[in-house]
Amino acid sequence: MNKNYIIPNEWSIIEEGFNKDNVKSSESLFSIGNGALGQRANFEEDYSGPSFQGSYIGGIYYPDKTRVGWWKNGYPEYFAKVLNAPNWIGIQIKINKTNLDLNTCKIQNFKRELNMKEGWLSRSFNAVLATGEEIEVISKRIISIAHNEVGAIKYSVKAVNFSGEITFKPYLDAGIVNQDSNYDEYFWDILNIEKGTNEGCILAKTLKTNFYVGTAMSVSFSHNNKKVDLEQTTNVQEKKLTYSYNLKINQGDTVTIYKYASYVTSLNYKEEKLVKAGLKNVQQASELGFDILLQEQVNSWAAIWKTSDIKIEGDIKAQQGIRFNIFQLNQTYLGTDSRLNIGPKGFTGEKYGGSTYWDTEAYCIPFYMATKDASVAKNLLLYRYNQLDKAIENAEKLGFKNGAALYPMVTMNGEECHNEWEITFEEIHRNGAMIYGIYNYVNYTKDFEYIPKYGLEVMIGVARFWHQRANFSAAKNKYVILGVTGPNEYENNVNNNFYTNYLAKWCIEYAIESLQKIKTEYAQDYKRVLAKTNLTEEETKQWLQVADNMYFPYSEKNKVYLQQDGFLDKELIPVAELSVEDRPINQKWSWDRILRSCYIKQADVLQGMFFFEDQFSKEEIERHFDFYEPLTVHESSLSPCVHSILAASIDRIPKAYEQYVRTSRLDLDDYNHEVDEGCHITSMAGTWMSIVQGFGGMRVKNGLLSFNPQIPKKWKSYTFTINFRGNVINVYKSQNECKFSNESGNEMTILVDNEKIKIPSKQLITV
Amino acid sequence: MNKNYIIPNEWSIIEEGFNKDNVKSSESLFSIGNGALGQRANFEEDYSGPSFQGSYIGGIYYPDKTRVGWWKNGYPEYFAKVLNAPNWIGIQIKINKTNLDLNTCKIQNFKRELNMKEGWLSRSFNAVLATGEEIEVISKRIISIAHNEVGAIKYSVKAVNFSGEITFKPYLDAGIVNQDSNYDEYFWDILNIEKGTNEGCILAKTLKTNFYVGTAMSVSFSHNNKKVDLEQTTNVQEKKLTYSYNLKINQGDTVTIYKYASYVTSLNYKEEKLVKAGLKNVQQASELGFDILLQEQVNSWAAIWKTSDIKIEGDIKAQQGIRFNIFQLNQTYLGTDSRLNIGPKGFTGEKYGGSTYWDTEAYCIPFYMATKDASVAKNLLLYRYNQLDKAIENAEKLGFKNGAALYPMVTMNGEECHNEWEITFEEIHRNGAMIYGIYNYVNYTKDFEYIPKYGLEVMIGVARFWHQRANFSAAKNKYVILGVTGPNEYENNVNNNFYTNYLAKWCIEYAIESLQKIKTEYAQDYKRVLAKTNLTEEETKQWLQVADNMYFPYSEKNKVYLQQDGFLDKELIPVAELSVEDRPINQKWSWDRILRSCYIKQADVLQGMFFFEDQFSKEEIERHFDFYEPLTVHESSLSPCVHSILAASIDRIPKAYEQYVRTSRLDLDDYNHEVDEGCHITSMAGTWMSIVQGFGGMRVKNGLLSFNPQIPKKWKSYTFTINFRGNVINVYKSQNECKFSNESGNEMTILVDNEKIKIPSKQLITV
Repeated sequence: MNKNYIIPNEWSIIEEGFNKDNVKSSESLFSIGNGALGQRANFEEDYSGPSFQGSYIGGIYYPDKTRVGWWKNGYPEYFAKVLNAPNWIGIQIKINKTNLDLNTCKIQNFKRELNMKEGWLSRSFNAVLATGEEIEVISKRIISIAHNEVGAIKYSVKAVNFSGEITFKPYLDAGIVNQDSNYDEYFWDILNIEKGTNEGCILAKTLKTNFYVGTAMSVSFSHNNKKVDLEQTTNVQEKKLTYSYNLKINQGDTVTIYKYASYVTSLNYKEEKLVKAGLKNVQQASELGFDILLQEQVNSWAAIWKTSDIKIEGDIKAQQGIRFNIFQLNQTYLGTDSRLNIGPKGFTGEKYGGSTYWDTEAYCIPFYMATKDASVAKNLLLYRYNQLDKAIENAEKLGFKNGAALYPMVTMNGEECHNEWEITFEEIHRNGAMIYGIYNYVNYTKDFEYIPKYGLEVMIGVARFWHQRANFSAAKNKYVILGVTGPNEYENNVNNNFYTNYLAKWCIEYAIESLQKIKTEYAQDYKRVLAKTNLTEEETKQWLQVADNMYFPYSEKNKVYLQQDGFLDKELIPVAELSVEDRPINQKWSWDRILRSCYIKQADVLQGMFFFEDQFSKEEIERHFDFYEPLTVHESSLSPCVHSILAASIDRIPKAYEQYVRTSRLDLDDYNHEVDEGCHITSMAGTWMSIVQGFGGMRVKNGLLSFNPQIPKKWKSYTFTINFRGNVINVYKSQNECKFSNESGNEMTILVDNEKIKIPSKQLITV
Repeated sequence: MNKNYIIPNEWSIIEEGFNKDNVKSSESLFSIGNGALGQRANFEEDYSGPSFQGSYIGGIYYPDKTRVGWWKNGYPEYFAKVLNAPNWIGIQIKINKTNLDLNTCKIQNFKRELNMKEGWLSRSFNAVLATGEEIEVISKRIISIAHNEVGAIKYSVKAVNFSGEITFKPYLDAGIVNQDSNYDEYFWDILNIEKGTNEGCILAKTLKTNFYVGTAMSVSFSHNNKKVDLEQTTNVQEKKLTYSYNLKINQGDTVTIYKYASYVTSLNYKEEKLVKAGLKNVQQASELGFDILLQEQVNSWAAIWKTSDIKIEGDIKAQQGIRFNIFQLNQTYLGTDSRLNIGPKGFTGEKYGGSTYWDTEAYCIPFYMATKDASVAKNLLLYRYNQLDKAIENAEKLGFKNGAALYPMVTMNGEECHNEWEITFEEIHRNGAMIYGIYNYVNYTKDFEYIPKYGLEVMIGVARFWHQRANFSAAKNKYVILGVTGPNEYENNVNNNFYTNYLAKWCIEYAIESLQKIKTEYAQDYKRVLAKTNLTEEETKQWLQVADNMYFPYSEKNKVYLQQDGFLDKELIPVAELSVEDRPINQKWSWDRILRSCYIKQADVLQGMFFFEDQFSKEEIERHFDFYEPLTVHESSLSPCVHSILAASIDRIPKAYEQYVRTSRLDLDDYNHEVDEGCHITSMAGTWMSIVQGFGGMRVKNGLLSFNPQIPKKWKSYTFTINFRGNVINVYKSQNECKFSNESGNEMTILVDNEKIKIPSKQLITV
């Protein structure tokens, strides 16, 4: 049963009424972040009920000791996971010495709001303590985009029915452990707890990786809106710094605590400067004050929405869903730091250990390219470029030679962070996605120079991998790729996965094509890269031998490429004929049953047709869609978006809409019963694509932006904005109309339904 | 590098000179046991160097919480492992208050002997303590076969160069933990520590499984061979009972401690009787005294060797090897208790968690049938019969219905004890071995009645499994079995493994053939079993549909059955051409590389030809041997024996000998660099088969014992003894002669090189 308690609203995620069962889910859904750091929506005050405390800093990870039942050669001994960082939000509240704990109080008028337009989280509620005192609490919290090491809280308590004493105990707690720790270890070493007057800082170091992190706070108070200075008591524990403040209040009084906090890390400062830097950050924040920080936050989000908002009229849940997706993507990654990337759970949880999957290249890059400056997508590509050495090392561990590169399935620092052999060693199609990301970026941005400067080395390492990974089958007189797992992870260790073989061939061809262009147009880079990689023309000929003679399983009878060798030996019973009790099969069936079944977790052959649409006829795509989609259970969050886009491309709008609904409110409606563990961040980019590339039909064709807008019956209209090579265009589609508005200073030529249309600067055109 | 420090000897395993690096290996190799309990050859006195303390009781297990990196549906949440039981051998020795510790003393004349003829373990050495005192120690230890709950130690200390005080601290230590515990948990609950004069007992209970175990001891002393009573001090700790005895001695004196111990368990006693029973056992042992217990032990082993010895002349290492194999098998299992079975490490280690693999049916049953009474093999079959309900449950967990049974890959109590999906869920050929075991037993013993009484139910459950597990392939117009792992575990999740498909078809046919015979000859049982299993003739027709239309991958070009679909797509490079640095591939290559290679871990197609030799022509076997053996790396302990036997059957004696050498001294020469973890017990039965079925060519043909003896060039002769349907025959083969001696009271007709020969009772015939 889906939880479905979020109140529909165009711009906000809203929860009304307090339900303990929803606490952990809401902690995920109401998460806030600024691309550099983020946190789950835990309560500031104590909460003794089930909760998942989580606060994370981009780039700060820990190599946890691998846990596995049966060890296989090549598994990483340690692998990196996002680190649960010190808690800076904590404010213990006592009323006449009784602790405020929503798990034990009587709660009324509880409301929680995540305002996506302005980027803040708030709560308000009345609480009646067991001892009878009633208070009204209003809190608001931000993680600042403008000051991206800073967070701030405004927390007000009103004495509703009593006069007495109120105690505030703001604290920093560095004793937080990772929920996903394999051996329940604590990953931090506390170095220094710096106390002071109304401000303080804990300096800690991560074990093994030796990241230094300073967590600072500064607090101030107002009483009935007048600033007050309160006497402070200090308590230093092993891993925790607590200040305590008492105040006598009268019935009707409101006391507010402002808590400013900051994370500073050795990624950006020298170790010995961290305490000072942290304290400086909170002092500055305190001087600016909460209201100014909040206004800056509103401005930051206004700028983000300007180039990324999608408006849907006539379907408020769809509207809320798409904005939630765009909002969370921006909270996770803003693209200003090439050391960071996009984890599947962002800053909303810990699951999946490492941070970066092929999701980034296959799903996220299009979103960031179209809604931000090209430098953002470039930073995502550079992240991989900077990890090329590790990818080469990774391939060497698996027996490859001569600079062949295998990018890890999951990674934080370039090293593999996964340990199921069928995924880690065999789901090698991810290596092709690295190259597809480059292709997609260059195609969209026209920044070909990225290839000679950076991408080419990656392309060579990956081409070498495919060349070595394929082997010649005497029986087939072709090159084959044995023992792989495709994007459809409901098949393991299969031979000749169509998608993998296709990507392999394409990667080699694209590398060779690029080499030829660079040889003439970027001769210097050509020489430099060939020297660096020891690449010879003889070697590229060998690559081509493999690409030219790659085997693709094909059924003459069905006129479709087969997902892998032997696919037609399965019992091909459509998903629609499966009993309800059997779904989802990943929760109901044992793994062997899933593997030998025909059921497809997410697009596999169709993923190839999605990537390389131009290389297949519309009729071919239809035929493959009709063969594979009925066998697809969409049990990956990445499945529905691809099918939605493909369905739209072959004019199956009802099917596209069905799949769109599934992707857009996956977390808000908790389809998979696991949102308490965190949100599915990367698939959110797929939701965005479902509208822009799916219903909007956006493509880049011969260097021109191309559209083919269609609209689901249920919607009145939708609008989205695209940044294309520095120009911004706004697309509006209603049931009867289609309008394009050129927001930029230049004339733009676009294709609409394959017809060229010129739009003058700042003009709107109705098609 | 093989350790290879064991001194060749016909009847003993001998180590001379003390080498700390060998301590853990020797603890495995010198293990002693009596089929009901056993232990590693740990020292009695303290040893502060690396050691693996291990003592085990048959049938006493613990369900450890499963450890796995990524959970899959169907994995067992807990699985049983052999429990490391309380230590009863411990005797701390102090000389003038200085502790005897071989890790810190100077050691001379160290000798350790495992006398296989008589079944005892001894050590002798001189030790010079850091404080200068020199002592000479001689110890001898047995685990009694005659009294199968009892062990005894005689431990003598001589004062070589001093007069002074000697302290003996015999103890029982129930604080031992399993080395293979998944979460470093302690598995026992100590209930009672019963102290007394010179005797005591610890009563403990296993957590979860609630097995009660009493561990008792009784001690006595002699001074220069005269019994003495010493004053006792008692120390009771949480998990340990220690008695302390002091004695003044003069230079040249010898003091001996006799320690008698006993395990008694709730498998055989009521809980409340255990302490009394344990104490009674040690009192009786003490009354008999060490010398009588030892003489009984010699007698017990003489009886065992009478029907199981193999004598090899002209190759002392081969002689030592085969006796070591036979000795360890008998120490592990004597066949008197159908609740017990044969674990891959016996009582010599913990690895592989559960106890019983398909090794029992495929490798061990022939040894026990031919060297012991038929009741022993029958007990092994009954073990599976008694676990049929659990096998049905296990199949249900994986989605099978209607009484289909899937026996676990590894088990202690009938539940699955393994959790790699590719093994647990997919290595289903084991289910066929259960039926092959029945077939083999009935064929050898002529005890057909076992089938209607017991075996038939197992056969029906297994046939149902195969019927449901196969599916019809429209593409092939045949039944296929998808997603399996064959005996060659270097392939996972393959389709149409020849061996598995062949076994499946055979199991169904054998079940139907048996049903037909039982219908007419055992009508009562037929009715009873059909009613119990709800089997109809209609259902068996459906089974036959699958068996009659089973698909087998075959290469017309190579005229061989293929190990699985697609095998010929691999690069087929013989093992001989692999570089030395690549071997063994399971230590050098990552798993994906192994999987996509052609290399075979152990017999797979050839395992089928070994089981069903009669169903293939000699020429077919030769062709398959020549195709597959060169691709086989023999990296399973179970591989060389099967190849040795097959090679002998096609008259390739040098190849048979090469493989025999590999199997027979696997542990003594530590080929796999892991004997410190325990010995490879089950493959030892394969070694026995390599001589009897391999060189000796023993088969049962049309109810007659048949031989075709051949001999490796290096050997002068070999002799073995076979028990066949109550008659005992001794086979002698030298380079020039072949003799058969009928040791039984009846005339025997045997086949030698397919010719019938009659041997009168007690006569020897030279062929």
